[in-house]
Amino acid sequence: MSETASLPLHATARANAVLSALRVQLGDKISTNASVCDAHSHGEALPVANMPVGVVFAETSEDVSATLRLCHEHRVPVVAFGAGTSVEGHVTPPDGGISLDLSRMARVLEVNQADLDCRVQAGVTRQSLNAFLRDTGLFFPVDPGGEATLGGMCATRASGTAAVKYGTIKENVLGLTVVLANGEIIQTGGRVRKSSTGYDLTSLFVGSEGTLGIITEVQLRLHGQPEQLSAAVCQFENLDDAVNTAVEIIQMGIPIARVELLDDVQMDACIRYSDLNEYRALTTLFFEFSGSPEAVKEQIAVTETLALDNIGLGFAWADSADERARLWKARHNAFWAIKAQHPGMRLISTDCIVPISQLTALISGVKDDIQKSGLYAAILGHVGDGNFHTIIVTEETDQGYQQALDLDRKIVARALALGGSCSGEHGVGLGKLEFLAAEHGEGALSVMRALKATLDPHNILNPGKLLPEGPVYAG
Amino acid sequence: MSETASLPLHATARANAVLSALRVQLGDKISTNASVCDAHSHGEALPVANMPVGVVFAETSEDVSATLRLCHEHRVPVVAFGAGTSVEGHVTPPDGGISLDLSRMARVLEVNQADLDCRVQAGVTRQSLNAFLRDTGLFFPVDPGGEATLGGMCATRASGTAAVKYGTIKENVLGLTVVLANGEIIQTGGRVRKSSTGYDLTSLFVGSEGTLGIITEVQLRLHGQPEQLSAAVCQFENLDDAVNTAVEIIQMGIPIARVELLDDVQMDACIRYSDLNEYRALTTLFFEFSGSPEAVKEQIAVTETLALDNIGLGFAWADSADERARLWKARHNAFWAIKAQHPGMRLISTDCIVPISQLTALISGVKDDIQKSGLYAAILGHVGDGNFHTIIVTEETDQGYQQALDLDRKIVARALALGGSCSGEHGVGLGKLEFLAAEHGEGALSVMRALKATLDPHNILNPGKLLPEGPVYAG
Repeated sequence: MSETASLPLHATARANAVLSALRVQLGDKISTNASVCDAHSHGEALPVANMPVGVVFAETSEDVSATLRLCHEHRVPVVAFGAGTSVEGHVTPPDGGISLDLSRMARVLEVNQADLDCRVQAGVTRQSLNAFLRDTGLFFPVDPGGEATLGGMCATRASGTAAVKYGTIKENVLGLTVVLANGEIIQTGGRVRKSSTGYDLTSLFVGSEGTLGIITEVQLRLHGQPEQLSAAVCQFENLDDAVNTAVEIIQMGIPIARVELLDDVQMDACIRYSDLNEYRALTTLFFEFSGSPEAVKEQIAVTETLALDNIGLGFAWADSADERARLWKARHNAFWAIKAQHPGMRLISTDCIVPISQLTALISGVKDDIQKSGLYAAILGHVGDGNFHTIIVTEETDQGYQQALDLDRKIVARALALGGSCSGEHGVGLGKLEFLAAEHGEGALSVMRALKATLDPHNILNPGKLLPEGPVYAG
Repeated sequence: MSETASLPLHATARANAVLSALRVQLGDKISTNASVCDAHSHGEALPVANMPVGVVFAETSEDVSATLRLCHEHRVPVVAFGAGTSVEGHVTPPDGGISLDLSRMARVLEVNQADLDCRVQAGVTRQSLNAFLRDTGLFFPVDPGGEATLGGMCATRASGTAAVKYGTIKENVLGLTVVLANGEIIQTGGRVRKSSTGYDLTSLFVGSEGTLGIITEVQLRLHGQPEQLSAAVCQFENLDDAVNTAVEIIQMGIPIARVELLDDVQMDACIRYSDLNEYRALTTLFFEFSGSPEAVKEQIAVTETLALDNIGLGFAWADSADERARLWKARHNAFWAIKAQHPGMRLISTDCIVPISQLTALISGVKDDIQKSGLYAAILGHVGDGNFHTIIVTEETDQGYQQALDLDRKIVARALALGGSCSGEHGVGLGKLEFLAAEHGEGALSVMRALKATLDPHNILNPGKLLPEGPVYAG
């Protein structure tokens, strides 16, 4: 599909022509500085980098429009860049491509307190949005790891630890401003809580990884800050018992705010890194409850019963804000805890999801796969959604990377065989391309390719990502 | 866009050729009987009917595939038909078209209790699904009026009284089986609670009103039957106070199961029709609360305080199952209550939605419009979503219908001016075509038209519905 990929020199020349033309309009919003280009050559985790020909720092939708119009005309590939926190190679520029940085589009445009919604530019990060909202009594719940931008979160259909209660970004986006391949600016969706008029373009662009258009503004649902929060930890001798506890919480419909699983390996690292010395290196569930005091009390009582029935080793409470923060900081630092134990090594964070009834079978199988691989790997996950990550530690060598990929392939194969998906929240990018046909089937992929060809006929928008090559539905 | 519309004779001949060819495969699943065709010539409400050339009663996805393959080849338009409950002309066949009836595809294919999901054929109605689920402890919450099919509900992006708590059909569909225009059968989505792999085809087909493909199977989220239900009614002298109560409930984040508004006109009709003689013909809110006993108690206490602070005239409780059923039956029979008071008259149920902060302004304006129109019209709505219907009563004449349309246009214009949508849950069909450009803008519509042209290049799938004619995005 990438007509420019085999022509790196010509492509680069075309990109330079576009940058020159753009300089007239955008002036010093354009950089070809080597260190700037280097910072835009890759995201996190995946060891795939490629230098962009230049970087455009857009400040408005019109800047994005001007850039795409020229890229479209001159067949220059362009990839959007927010905070660069994606882990599957989404933001790596194609040969001869331009990186379109949206981080300067960082304004909260409006907050409608009465309607529990807001509008932000794509470069606003979730942390800065929540800082902005602090005094309103509202918050935005979707929390992928890292200081991701809302535009990037939309593009990869991100979620995080709070999806079990509040849904993913998909359920929390009401509308978008999108710049199409030819530079045209459109609005999708709106501010209403539901609508049944027209094709759901918002959902089409959410998760499209910059391959169908560039998202420049996002209308978001907000939520009331809960009256009370409470956290707890429960440890288990057996993995199955921990997983079953989480599964039963969901099946009983308890509106739990968060339920996260750390396996024995991950917990061991967290104890050392975050001084959780009162705990043992066992499979552990971290819980968060939210709501009115009465509701929280009730959720806790039921959860505690379920955990103890599953041979949980007692509930440890974190009632004070400080203690709650300490526990959840330890959870959020899980990746860094592994990193600190393995200086100089590469960490690969995989991602898969299954229907929750299959989670015990999957994680048990993955533990076997890890053992057989001889690699050090930890499991942590958004267990209430059936979603989990395996953090694999390898040497910083090609061979080490290949060993990690081999293990990841086994994990994904297990997930797909159990009716799952190869990514719950990280997206496809380059890293998951090989699994798409097995997951979706060629029929659905041929439709996706037809949509791509329709909205981006010259294949300039993040070419080579999300969709493996293959037949295009033609009716 | 409709190449066949101007050629009714040729189109009919082509449709007959397709039906003859199909008879070899499908035998007596095909009918050209006049009364069968008449029953498939229209939906509800909209006085637009057209006879199909014939009706195919599909029993499998393969039957649908065989039909579309031939229709595609011979350029014969085809419209899916479920229960025929749509109110905007969706199921009215185009000239020379075939009606593809899915009501025999009425099997629940699987229920996964542990994962809270199920798979149904498109012709299963929501009532029959819930009857099937009764002993499982689970239920499916989306409840448009009428005995609609799940396929039809997906096609129109339906919702109902429970959307305020459980979301619309869109939030409750995990995946689909879809037959494309050329007869190819694809799967979209899956069984996992979230995924970030590939374009969201499920959301693209949901709400596409049979114009992009025919939905034959649906994977649905289910929910646990709540431990306790409680209902209440509160009346208000002033409309504003009632609306403000509902708005404040949402803003406070109370997880109310239902909150429905009936204006004084509607309430007057309901009192007579459903013997609610203990109430007065005043603006009224119907509430339903669900959850654990403690949670329900707490929701009720807060709601009652809000209602009384807004000068509500006291809370009437329906604690017994019988009394609850009586109240909600009266609400569900609101349309029939108006009908019974106006024998021989036409009833038009309109539909619009605004951000909830705009609801008081909108409904007040609409009450003015009704008064000025001289028509009898009642307002009832899913007030927690900002969504409401005006039931307009007119003569069964063209002039009467035009008067109703004139009033509806005023209502929609008000809704759009307040940042709303011309349909919260009924869909576009033929009835709302004229408002799409004002709501979405030509840019978004040109993208929708491009998607339509890509997935249905010969425009055989429910042509003329959902999308007004205009420019097609071409990059």
